[in-house]
Amino acid sequence: MGKGRLEAFSDGVLAIIITIMVLELKVPHGEDLAALKPLIPVFLSYVLSFIYIGIYWNNHHHMLHATPSVNGAILWANLHLLFWLSLVPAATDWMGENHFAPAPTALYGVPLLMAAFAYWLLQRTIVARHGRDSLLATALGGDLKGKLSPILYLVAIPAAFVRPWIAGALYVLVALIWLIPDRRIEKALAST
Amino acid sequence: MGKGRLEAFSDGVLAIIITIMVLELKVPHGEDLAALKPLIPVFLSYVLSFIYIGIYWNNHHHMLHATPSVNGAILWANLHLLFWLSLVPAATDWMGENHFAPAPTALYGVPLLMAAFAYWLLQRTIVARHGRDSLLATALGGDLKGKLSPILYLVAIPAAFVRPWIAGALYVLVALIWLIPDRRIEKALAST
Amino acid sequence: MGKGRLEAFSDGVLAIIITIMVLELKVPHGEDLAALKPLIPVFLSYVLSFIYIGIYWNNHHHMLHATPSVNGAILWANLHLLFWLSLVPAATDWMGENHFAPAPTALYGVPLLMAAFAYWLLQRTIVARHGRDSLLATALGGDLKGKLSPILYLVAIPAAFVRPWIAGALYVLVALIWLIPDRRIEKALAST
Amino acid sequence: MGKGRLEAFSDGVLAIIITIMVLELKVPHGEDLAALKPLIPVFLSYVLSFIYIGIYWNNHHHMLHATPSVNGAILWANLHLLFWLSLVPAATDWMGENHFAPAPTALYGVPLLMAAFAYWLLQRTIVARHGRDSLLATALGGDLKGKLSPILYLVAIPAAFVRPWIAGALYVLVALIWLIPDRRIEKALAST
Repeated sequence: MGKGRLEAFSDGVLAIIITIMVLELKVPHGEDLAALKPLIPVFLSYVLSFIYIGIYWNNHHHMLHATPSVNGAILWANLHLLFWLSLVPAATDWMGENHFAPAPTALYGVPLLMAAFAYWLLQRTIVARHGRDSLLATALGGDLKGKLSPILYLVAIPAAFVRPWIAGALYVLVALIWLIPDRRIEKALAST
Repeated sequence: MGKGRLEAFSDGVLAIIITIMVLELKVPHGEDLAALKPLIPVFLSYVLSFIYIGIYWNNHHHMLHATPSVNGAILWANLHLLFWLSLVPAATDWMGENHFAPAPTALYGVPLLMAAFAYWLLQRTIVARHGRDSLLATALGGDLKGKLSPILYLVAIPAAFVRPWIAGALYVLVALIWLIPDRRIEKALAST
Repeated sequence: MGKGRLEAFSDGVLAIIITIMVLELKVPHGEDLAALKPLIPVFLSYVLSFIYIGIYWNNHHHMLHATPSVNGAILWANLHLLFWLSLVPAATDWMGENHFAPAPTALYGVPLLMAAFAYWLLQRTIVARHGRDSLLATALGGDLKGKLSPILYLVAIPAAFVRPWIAGALYVLVALIWLIPDRRIEKALAST
Repeated sequence: MGKGRLEAFSDGVLAIIITIMVLELKVPHGEDLAALKPLIPVFLSYVLSFIYIGIYWNNHHHMLHATPSVNGAILWANLHLLFWLSLVPAATDWMGENHFAPAPTALYGVPLLMAAFAYWLLQRTIVARHGRDSLLATALGGDLKGKLSPILYLVAIPAAFVRPWIAGALYVLVALIWLIPDRRIEKALAST
């Protein structure tokens, strides 16, 4: 089965997720610049989540690029990933509107953690179909980033109840780790 | 006529339907975890509807895969299906916000029932165009699932007025029946 | 220049227009079926607008199918059409929420009238590029429907201030006239 | 790496941005035409932003058309552009709802200025990958429009605090400058 529609559907869902977050940047009441001040934490949360969804789109793009074809299991593993990512806008809003209070900052890590798990599951489902010697399997190698991210989320979630800024710093750290696109797959593709 | 744009448009509409449902997961007031409690039924409704739209996308993907080309009648049968699916978010919200009260739980079954009928009609329209011996017609065979689902919805809708949890259980049951992607078409394709 | 992205962008915008209208089917307050009653005119407006956008998507699909390539003028004529169609959801809501009151019912005709004009302009721009002997020009022929629709809208808009139901009936009539997909192009394509 | 998904994702995001702006054309309270009057500045802002997003889509279309392939840096430069464009709807609403008051009118220029910078950065990233002799580099030439627009925005933003209409006139002027699609690339393509 071709992968075209899986890519198109994922692009559509990710494009909507990344864009509906901006709907929460609600028009401030009042017409002077001071009216924008309460929007600052909402804006910062938006920037962080925009980068996260951008990273997922980017890596999804690279992963599917190295995938010759898809089956039913891959379609569902992909929907599972999109499900957790679809919760990112709601978590972003809650964190932003409460100015990085402990519980919302902790909860923000939950869809990120589950999406990291879902991404790993999708990778495994693709490798299971195309074999341990497939292009993707080779490109992944040790997958340090993929193993490190969930650990950092698991530290960040409880840490948010102690000091929310620690959780925030860890979320930014994971984003920075991933911001560099996955050169492993680009390299593996170039060497074929 | 090519089927590319029908697939692209359907992907777009389904991607939007599946994503706007999350807009109802409205940011709770208050910044502690207890503020999330009233969201639980809304969240559960969202999960169920996400799975339903995922099933439709999946089966739509498989069905169109087995369809060589489309005509005007197929375009309209497809829009008819998308119409009923577009009502799922509103029905989901009403059910979730009223914590599975009888009338909203009954009403949730109506777009599902009509979408099942519309899907059957779309199948028939495709088979009518490509013949009883076409790949899709063979793959469908007896179509047990397609016949069982509307019956279960027709039981669930009145049952919701007696005991809403019976309707809820039946909706979950239909989802489980379909969750397995349509291997009939995958098999028929593999055997060609 | 290829027409792929023009089709993809138009599909995206039309898919969003057709789906965001459903956001106005706001979850009713109250959990019994009577709570749905004020939604009936909103629902009927939604059905009518869904059919209109469906007709535009369908005819757009057919027209682009008969168009070999696009240029800058066609891109802008297409955006102009999408602009007027993007106003349909707002006009739909106003008409539905005011239960087909005169002014909202009249105003509903304005984006429809302008979209009909924009569609005609887009057709002309395509024919201007590909010549009077092109497939599209031949398929259009006298274009009776295209000439009749704006006249009916021009009658409906003032009529709404006298008797809103006359305007409503005319809007439904235009939809019925177009509901049959444009067989002219299908025929012209089949005869090549 | 192919550019198909970058185009599809950008089309999706731009289609959503251009369409969600219309959600701010909120259904007026009251059922006579006078109820539409406060919507006029909102509508005018919508028209201006629709044209701006249309221009970006159009030029993006042309630029990618002249781009043979993409890499990780281009993907991120493109996401950076989409980020600033995603802020246009919020800025549009603020300006429209405050009837072109000084601060909102100034702020409207900020995402436009940043998007102009992001577009220039994306161009540079593509040219850096494909070389100074590439089709795009030749087509761009002196890039007068690209250099003029940020200067006009930089004048408009402080001017809004003195006389908002000066800023408004400058925003309209930049739109008019760009409304003519980028014939440089069409010409360069035609001459190959």
